[in-house]
Amino acid sequence: MITLSSDFGSPYPAAMKGVILQESDARLVDVSHQFPRQDVGAAAFWLREVLPHFPPAVHCVVVDPGVGTERAAIVIRAGEHALVGPDNGVLVPVARELDGDVEVFEIEYDDPESVTFHGRDVFAPAAATVHEAGIDDFEREDGFVEADSFVDLSVPEPVEREDGVTGEVLVVDDFGNAITNIPGERLEGQFGSDVTVNGVWAPARRTYAAVGPDKRVVTVGSHGNVELAVNQGRGDKRFSVSPGARVRLRWT
Amino acid sequence: MITLSSDFGSPYPAAMKGVILQESDARLVDVSHQFPRQDVGAAAFWLREVLPHFPPAVHCVVVDPGVGTERAAIVIRAGEHALVGPDNGVLVPVARELDGDVEVFEIEYDDPESVTFHGRDVFAPAAATVHEAGIDDFEREDGFVEADSFVDLSVPEPVEREDGVTGEVLVVDDFGNAITNIPGERLEGQFGSDVTVNGVWAPARRTYAAVGPDKRVVTVGSHGNVELAVNQGRGDKRFSVSPGARVRLRWT
Amino acid sequence: MITLSSDFGSPYPAAMKGVILQESDARLVDVSHQFPRQDVGAAAFWLREVLPHFPPAVHCVVVDPGVGTERAAIVIRAGEHALVGPDNGVLVPVARELDGDVEVFEIEYDDPESVTFHGRDVFAPAAATVHEAGIDDFEREDGFVEADSFVDLSVPEPVEREDGVTGEVLVVDDFGNAITNIPGERLEGQFGSDVTVNGVWAPARRTYAAVGPDKRVVTVGSHGNVELAVNQGRGDKRFSVSPGARVRLRWT
Repeated sequence: MITLSSDFGSPYPAAMKGVILQESDARLVDVSHQFPRQDVGAAAFWLREVLPHFPPAVHCVVVDPGVGTERAAIVIRAGEHALVGPDNGVLVPVARELDGDVEVFEIEYDDPESVTFHGRDVFAPAAATVHEAGIDDFEREDGFVEADSFVDLSVPEPVEREDGVTGEVLVVDDFGNAITNIPGERLEGQFGSDVTVNGVWAPARRTYAAVGPDKRVVTVGSHGNVELAVNQGRGDKRFSVSPGARVRLRWT
Repeated sequence: MITLSSDFGSPYPAAMKGVILQESDARLVDVSHQFPRQDVGAAAFWLREVLPHFPPAVHCVVVDPGVGTERAAIVIRAGEHALVGPDNGVLVPVARELDGDVEVFEIEYDDPESVTFHGRDVFAPAAATVHEAGIDDFEREDGFVEADSFVDLSVPEPVEREDGVTGEVLVVDDFGNAITNIPGERLEGQFGSDVTVNGVWAPARRTYAAVGPDKRVVTVGSHGNVELAVNQGRGDKRFSVSPGARVRLRWT
Repeated sequence: MITLSSDFGSPYPAAMKGVILQESDARLVDVSHQFPRQDVGAAAFWLREVLPHFPPAVHCVVVDPGVGTERAAIVIRAGEHALVGPDNGVLVPVARELDGDVEVFEIEYDDPESVTFHGRDVFAPAAATVHEAGIDDFEREDGFVEADSFVDLSVPEPVEREDGVTGEVLVVDDFGNAITNIPGERLEGQFGSDVTVNGVWAPARRTYAAVGPDKRVVTVGSHGNVELAVNQGRGDKRFSVSPGARVRLRWT
């Protein structure tokens, strides 16, 4: 099985699929091709959210603000999974989630100058090669060399306060829920009470439906993080936040 | 075969696929993950339009304005098909279309409080279980109990008039065609003539191309219902209607 | 393998898949269902860009501004590939790219008046039939007749100038890159220099990353054509162009 993730929209991912299917009969599953454009942090968040639900697979992920620069191309072996993509940190958090013990390999490739679409010409073939060689068995003769170092991703940490916590919005999902970096456990004691979010009052509840339609709610999403939401509406608009925005939660 | 339908956008459906693929080798086919947000009527319309074209399959459908409330989770056996989703009526019209004789089962599940994504944690596993047990054979020991009752969906009926008919817009498709609840047969005698739609003149024709580009036309779509359209344009804009809007057709 | 391409958005393509899966166990791969609405030239461009990367397959393509008119439905045999769709030229450039020697067949079908969705009722069944009969072997008894003629697509040619070249924008991709009909080789001598685009200065470079974030760049994309881009931004906005716009490149 090979999963595909990117910020490519359509139809570029289809070219990647064609290339893979030239070399492999693997089942192909799209994770998303609508990741926020060139947003490595958002992609890392979503991958960690989604990929651990999959059975063993090769995950080909291309969110690549550094295309055309010297950044390396890597494969990470993480337990029964492999991750293929640019060496920009996007693969690392999910790799650690999949398996504590990760091995990183560099993909050797010739870059025929500018007329190159790395997703199609580098990462798709590498994903097919890893799949065909086997996640346990791919090696140097398949074009992969153990990497001396790799780019890690610093995930912003929330800051504890006496009367609450300050974090930030990591991503906004398609429902408009603003997902923060604040762990859900921080909200445990507050359910049933009101809190303030950047100075605005809102009820802390376990579910969206605990407030009326179109009402603000601070809750914990399926990802386990604190989320700013509106029942049957868009939390990002009503809390006036977007990815990267500071979120100051205060207990009251 | 398992089909997937939702209003989730991306990437949440991928987590559902991962969960299913842990338990099943079924072919997965996306119907849509762009159904209008939490619009049970629109989803019911599209399912009835699309699913009957499929060979026998398990159809997992999550459009769920009541997530977090007490609404049940159900499986409907409809002939050679099974439908899995929230008990909010969305599955019922297509189930009746697939087979006159439907059986409804409740899905038993533990709800570990708020940190739950029912699509991933309840409906995807249930779809996999039904698929693996077999549509004819799933039963109580698989976690399904015959339901005493279930939510039905009242589809709005058009009202006959002496000089026409009054209905409403059910959905607007991605082309901008406003699809009404008025049966196509009601337009039969009018092809070639003009009608009025909410007081505005428009030709009734069998095809979009029977009028010039960018011209209004009242026609019958592939779904068999009366449609307000514009040849190579958006009917919803030009007729100033959106889902739920009243549509008064008058013969002239 | 059957690939699907259209401008249908969602969920109409799912009905096509259901119909195909009634007749065939073929692997289905979506190329795109987001092609620009009824834009035959854009679809022809993308198909030529993507389909040659696929192993032998039946490619079902429905971008059909002439639906409801007398336009024919065709299958093209192009080497080991077959292409199925309306006879409006969209299939021809990619067919020639796949194989110099193309054979064109007309699909015989009954059109049951207006209540027809040709993608679902004509092209999907034809694609399944071609797939099941075999790309080498489908013939008259499968409902296909050699065509006397077919619609070709005139691709606009750039005009050479003493001090540059004038072309036009063919498509804008999801990143906002404006892809022109000007062959990349025309830019070869200019890399490292500045050029003007419709009178506006911009650097010609081999990669996006050769200019700073949010800076204009004239480059050559993976498709081999000259592209008006912005590093990590939208070229179409910053060069004020859209599909069909004239592009006057001048060397300086």
